[in-house]
Amino acid sequence: MTTKQLVEQIRTKKSFLCIGLDVDLNKIPQHLLQTEDPIFEFNKAIIDATHDLCVSYKPNTAFYEAYGIKGWQSLEKTINYINEKYPEIFTIADAKRGDIGNTSTMYAKAFFEDLAFDSVTVAPYMGKDSVEPFLAFKNKHTIMLALTSNEGAFDFQTKIVDGEELYKKVLQTSKSWKHSENLMYVCGATKAEYFKEIRKIVPNNFLLVPGVGAQGGSLKDVCQFGLNSQVGLLINSSRGIIYASNGEDFANAARNEALILQKEMEVILSFN
Amino acid sequence: MTTKQLVEQIRTKKSFLCIGLDVDLNKIPQHLLQTEDPIFEFNKAIIDATHDLCVSYKPNTAFYEAYGIKGWQSLEKTINYINEKYPEIFTIADAKRGDIGNTSTMYAKAFFEDLAFDSVTVAPYMGKDSVEPFLAFKNKHTIMLALTSNEGAFDFQTKIVDGEELYKKVLQTSKSWKHSENLMYVCGATKAEYFKEIRKIVPNNFLLVPGVGAQGGSLKDVCQFGLNSQVGLLINSSRGIIYASNGEDFANAARNEALILQKEMEVILSFN
Repeated sequence: MTTKQLVEQIRTKKSFLCIGLDVDLNKIPQHLLQTEDPIFEFNKAIIDATHDLCVSYKPNTAFYEAYGIKGWQSLEKTINYINEKYPEIFTIADAKRGDIGNTSTMYAKAFFEDLAFDSVTVAPYMGKDSVEPFLAFKNKHTIMLALTSNEGAFDFQTKIVDGEELYKKVLQTSKSWKHSENLMYVCGATKAEYFKEIRKIVPNNFLLVPGVGAQGGSLKDVCQFGLNSQVGLLINSSRGIIYASNGEDFANAARNEALILQKEMEVILSFN
Repeated sequence: MTTKQLVEQIRTKKSFLCIGLDVDLNKIPQHLLQTEDPIFEFNKAIIDATHDLCVSYKPNTAFYEAYGIKGWQSLEKTINYINEKYPEIFTIADAKRGDIGNTSTMYAKAFFEDLAFDSVTVAPYMGKDSVEPFLAFKNKHTIMLALTSNEGAFDFQTKIVDGEELYKKVLQTSKSWKHSENLMYVCGATKAEYFKEIRKIVPNNFLLVPGVGAQGGSLKDVCQFGLNSQVGLLINSSRGIIYASNGEDFANAARNEALILQKEMEVILSFN
């Protein structure tokens, strides 16, 4: 998918919501556990109930790997279902991968070719040659961790390197990499005040923003500093939407939560 | 496996060799492609031919994920084969994972419980709460990236943070984390002169050292500065061993390459 197509979808749906499909068998409605593939059945119901309110789904691979081959099968069925039934959706494999060059190429093939995701999240610690193999794929997007929304973000990401915080150094350095136009960045919503600084370095790239809702970030604050002329934001919510209810009404409850965020986004977009 | 058991294995085998099982279908002997599971058949032959010369096997998960569910099955069969036939071997899932707390717990379950690896590699960028969930597993080991052997290591890892290189900050900071006794570190062999500094910060931890052989590092140089009283080193070689030949003699050729490294290690251990 091209960035232009993503922006068109956002304008049409009046939403820049991404729903995180972090499926934990201990948290989903118990009646689903009797089905052959509870994870896929859960995802299918959530997707069918919310696809017109969001522009992106983001399965976190950890939740699938934890169930071994069965989990990997659920992930494959989920991405195939989205790609076949809702091809306009921007799909994100939240995998946070990164390795030396030839190994990163294998990861890129796994997520861009074998599973046909539009994008994958990567970690920056190993530098340029660990990320460029992902960037080489045309019309695929690489979403690099910059400033995450967890407490541990302060251990290294905000430490000063050459006079600026490490996450700024990461943003700045990555702009010189080959095909850096295919980069997006993970920037946590719990630190909305940082978005002003982030936009000075990467005014045009899309930012994937976790931490709204369950983790305490404010949508309005993030938008104030993070929006650009192409919208440029994907706001993720996972638990707040998918676990809104664990009864038989779970899909409807998820839709209601997604609707509240979409309506808020519609107002924000009307002012921008 | 406890660290004590690992050290005993090293003393018995007179080897601290780790063999990387980075299996690429384009590089393995062509006659294996006719078997039902070429990746597993390849690994099985390599393992049977080298298990007495090495103390550890390290499949890199990227090479398995690239083949989707079939690849994940090959990985599962490989780890089960090692655990059943050669239970003394220290197994490493080279996965370079790392995510927010509850998600890292899912990854830890995937590799420590579902696949029953002894250890997993993790990335440090997201800090303390992304690594501690791995450290909580008893008699399991978490091998954190510190200084990698690729060119991109110089993008961020060697940059100065609070008066010291980032990789030193990572080593130092991680010592205060809960159950840090379960930490090992990835330190690349292409920069043997750094091992003196690394040992000042983490004198007792095991270091997993890639970059010997194909990537140009010297075993002797690394040992000079890296060995400690418990040996404290696992030297990895992947391509140099497993792709020594792509003919029908591939397993024997791999054994010969492993034997050369083991003999060199035997001499080094006799002086230490």
